[in-house]
Amino acid sequence: MWLKNTWYVACTRKELDALGDRPLGRTICHEKMALFTGSDSQVAALEDFCPHRGAPLSLGRVCNGHLQCGYHGLQMGVDGKTVEMPMQRVRSFPPIRAFPVTERYGFVWVWPGNAAQADVALLPTLDFLEHPDWAYGGGLYHVQADYRLMIDNLMDLTHETYVHANSIGQPELEETPSTTSVENGQVITQRHLSGIQAPPFWQMAMRAQGLDHQASVDRWQICRFTPPSHVMIDVGVALAGHGGFHAPSHLKAYSVVVDFITPETETSHWYHWGMARNFKPKDTELTQQIRTGQGRIFGEDMEMLQRQQSNLSHWPERRLLSLNIDAGGVKARRLIEQHIAKESRELEL
Amino acid sequence: MWLKNTWYVACTRKELDALGDRPLGRTICHEKMALFTGSDSQVAALEDFCPHRGAPLSLGRVCNGHLQCGYHGLQMGVDGKTVEMPMQRVRSFPPIRAFPVTERYGFVWVWPGNAAQADVALLPTLDFLEHPDWAYGGGLYHVQADYRLMIDNLMDLTHETYVHANSIGQPELEETPSTTSVENGQVITQRHLSGIQAPPFWQMAMRAQGLDHQASVDRWQICRFTPPSHVMIDVGVALAGHGGFHAPSHLKAYSVVVDFITPETETSHWYHWGMARNFKPKDTELTQQIRTGQGRIFGEDMEMLQRQQSNLSHWPERRLLSLNIDAGGVKARRLIEQHIAKESRELEL
Amino acid sequence: MWLKNTWYVACTRKELDALGDRPLGRTICHEKMALFTGSDSQVAALEDFCPHRGAPLSLGRVCNGHLQCGYHGLQMGVDGKTVEMPMQRVRSFPPIRAFPVTERYGFVWVWPGNAAQADVALLPTLDFLEHPDWAYGGGLYHVQADYRLMIDNLMDLTHETYVHANSIGQPELEETPSTTSVENGQVITQRHLSGIQAPPFWQMAMRAQGLDHQASVDRWQICRFTPPSHVMIDVGVALAGHGGFHAPSHLKAYSVVVDFITPETETSHWYHWGMARNFKPKDTELTQQIRTGQGRIFGEDMEMLQRQQSNLSHWPERRLLSLNIDAGGVKARRLIEQHIAKESRELEL
Repeated sequence: MWLKNTWYVACTRKELDALGDRPLGRTICHEKMALFTGSDSQVAALEDFCPHRGAPLSLGRVCNGHLQCGYHGLQMGVDGKTVEMPMQRVRSFPPIRAFPVTERYGFVWVWPGNAAQADVALLPTLDFLEHPDWAYGGGLYHVQADYRLMIDNLMDLTHETYVHANSIGQPELEETPSTTSVENGQVITQRHLSGIQAPPFWQMAMRAQGLDHQASVDRWQICRFTPPSHVMIDVGVALAGHGGFHAPSHLKAYSVVVDFITPETETSHWYHWGMARNFKPKDTELTQQIRTGQGRIFGEDMEMLQRQQSNLSHWPERRLLSLNIDAGGVKARRLIEQHIAKESRELEL
Repeated sequence: MWLKNTWYVACTRKELDALGDRPLGRTICHEKMALFTGSDSQVAALEDFCPHRGAPLSLGRVCNGHLQCGYHGLQMGVDGKTVEMPMQRVRSFPPIRAFPVTERYGFVWVWPGNAAQADVALLPTLDFLEHPDWAYGGGLYHVQADYRLMIDNLMDLTHETYVHANSIGQPELEETPSTTSVENGQVITQRHLSGIQAPPFWQMAMRAQGLDHQASVDRWQICRFTPPSHVMIDVGVALAGHGGFHAPSHLKAYSVVVDFITPETETSHWYHWGMARNFKPKDTELTQQIRTGQGRIFGEDMEMLQRQQSNLSHWPERRLLSLNIDAGGVKARRLIEQHIAKESRELEL
Repeated sequence: MWLKNTWYVACTRKELDALGDRPLGRTICHEKMALFTGSDSQVAALEDFCPHRGAPLSLGRVCNGHLQCGYHGLQMGVDGKTVEMPMQRVRSFPPIRAFPVTERYGFVWVWPGNAAQADVALLPTLDFLEHPDWAYGGGLYHVQADYRLMIDNLMDLTHETYVHANSIGQPELEETPSTTSVENGQVITQRHLSGIQAPPFWQMAMRAQGLDHQASVDRWQICRFTPPSHVMIDVGVALAGHGGFHAPSHLKAYSVVVDFITPETETSHWYHWGMARNFKPKDTELTQQIRTGQGRIFGEDMEMLQRQQSNLSHWPERRLLSLNIDAGGVKARRLIEQHIAKESRELEL
């Protein structure tokens, strides 16, 4: 179904901060968690279950770096061991599960599997998310569909013509075939268009880069899936004939669509979406404008995915087609299955 | 549970037209369907499942007489075979189910069973629904109850005194016994009242026919059930002593309550209700007025039926009473069961 | 799970009266009931199922002391036998269950178990609820949690410091240990504070009694659980050094928190809460003011209990801790289990 010994995005630092001294309750890979910021601004993720009477710790408050249960005041440490409780000796209280958790690129990452294997070296490298020449804006959707339907969606952008007909769909995209490969544990589906007119969004970006927005361009979409469920999409344009994606920086404008897809249950997931761009990075108004537009467009996918899930649940025995345009999603699922099989073998040893 | 090899009302032509180039998603006898108008205004009903990735076709658009999937643009023909898809060879795509469908009397009829047996000669004959001397107005309710509870309701109008106490209930109705018979595959429950004062609705109808609305009248209610689940109710008044229902046209005023009851699931159905009348047929304001009143009255039945369903689901083992007033519903259910048994036997051959 | 051969509060007389000639539908210990006032103001509780076609009797009307079904007019007597139905001979109609029911202290009490064992002598004695020197105000909440979680809640008031931090929580309460005992079939958890300053509510009560509200006081909380699920809590203050709870009446001010907890399903219950007081009993504005405040405070418990229930349903195998503060709830549950075991043994004989 999904990988467990891996890092998933649980939330953003901003989401946590917005709650003040309240923790955040979130279910990830079926694990109910309470996320909060402990002492020294260290983020923690605990099973959302007070060992005293089973109350959800996420209804409590953060208190001196501990999570205080909102029912009878038990204080839980970031390691899942009870620290104190009024008038009680807590040493023999059963510990609750503490999930490995770390923070990077503005996101909080949790490891829902075997804590002994958690290793921050396994976090994805996404330097552009903290590079000063780049700006980032994004949001979160809760989607009632298997997380793999979102991967399928992002690894086949031909759907833009139909789902996003009124926003970003373009006939040229559909008419150009894509190629899919698996390299270094990544699935890459890419489409390159040559000598076309830039669409409005990219004309705007070209002007911001000091380029002639009327010039003929080469355009690319490079979707990169990495396990467990991240999809980064390089999108951009370069003056025609200079190498497209590989053109020198001053001849192109580009950005990265960032998608962190976190399973919640078999039929629901958390969808953290955003866009990182390297043009006009200080323009916060532009960041907000892009974020609003992207949020609206990604919202259009939600009804489709949720109704697709409902159909697949209704007809569980039906086999789907795997066309060339589906290669990205199909290979991504295969990679996930290989990793899950590897996890199972490790468990048996 | 319900007949499958038969015609059910799926929707009205008006419902389809109001959607423009959008199809209508509707579940009938557990079959999820996408209904739309193909080329030459021919209506089509397809399984609501795109063979590509399982998206619901009812989220798509009608395009050159085909149903285009709203996810990746697959175009489905009215016969359930894929016609085309951008950049794809579709010949080997698995077909989806196309349901026999036809249009008559302003309604769209589907055949959820074996398509080979579908025959438009089996459609009910309801000529008054398209006769120029008659007018029709009606509506649609989605009811969370077994469709047979609605049949029971319509085949026993003594409930009017209680459910519709503030609108059409009358003590004379309850005091007059009804008779029930099975003739030519129809269940007929009728009640005839003699020498009574016409109630307000019929006084209005008598005036429209040029009759003295104060005159003593004979009144009738003749409920006719035909499989799979249609109930037509002749209602009217005639000047007393002229034969009641059989009185010459110029001495009476009457109309037909039209009920098409379409199963959705074991505990829900679509209820198409309406009234056809032969007085003042050109008076569209009157049509609207009657429609509003009838909609309000039929809405009163909904809570009762839904709560009755909830009770029957809670006490599944309880047996109900079958009194004389229930004869219409009981015989209608028996007729349905006989037809279902016949369907099963045909399946075995 | 719960006792059956016992009296539970079903509703208040006021709730019934507010419905006029309509009955009240309510599920108690999984039994769907229709409650109404029959002839001579006698309250009745019938299975909410018309023997004719299964319609809920709670949609009907009270008519000459009988409950008339709102579908076809069957009239049901308070003993569960059909009295009459238009045009029908009803003698052979199957009876429905009539639950023993009685009225006392402004509440309607039902006995969901074996009617033969119902005995009004088993009703709790709560004289203060009808004594002229006392006033009572209360309300009803529907809580999506096992009724025993509410008992736990009320038998351990240390939760006030956390759940009700902004209203009635006080540090002195938490710092004073409680004792729990089982006496005469009651579980009693009590906490006594000596020589403290009265909190605002009790200062107000002292003034009403003509006492110096600044004086040092002794304070008490005595939670009394009696099966099946009633919790009465004596709360009050007395001038310090005069015996606390046992001080002479003119030196103290006190009230009783009244809780009738009625199981609905395994994970839901009806919570009738209120406060009886013996100061300013004629002051109806004060009654309303206390009622509003108590309703708001008890509402704070609801989210906690419902989320706790959701956690316990998610982790059904987890064992909870039983600390000294939980003694009241734990002993109450043990008492309930003993009574249930006794019921089972009686059933076997």
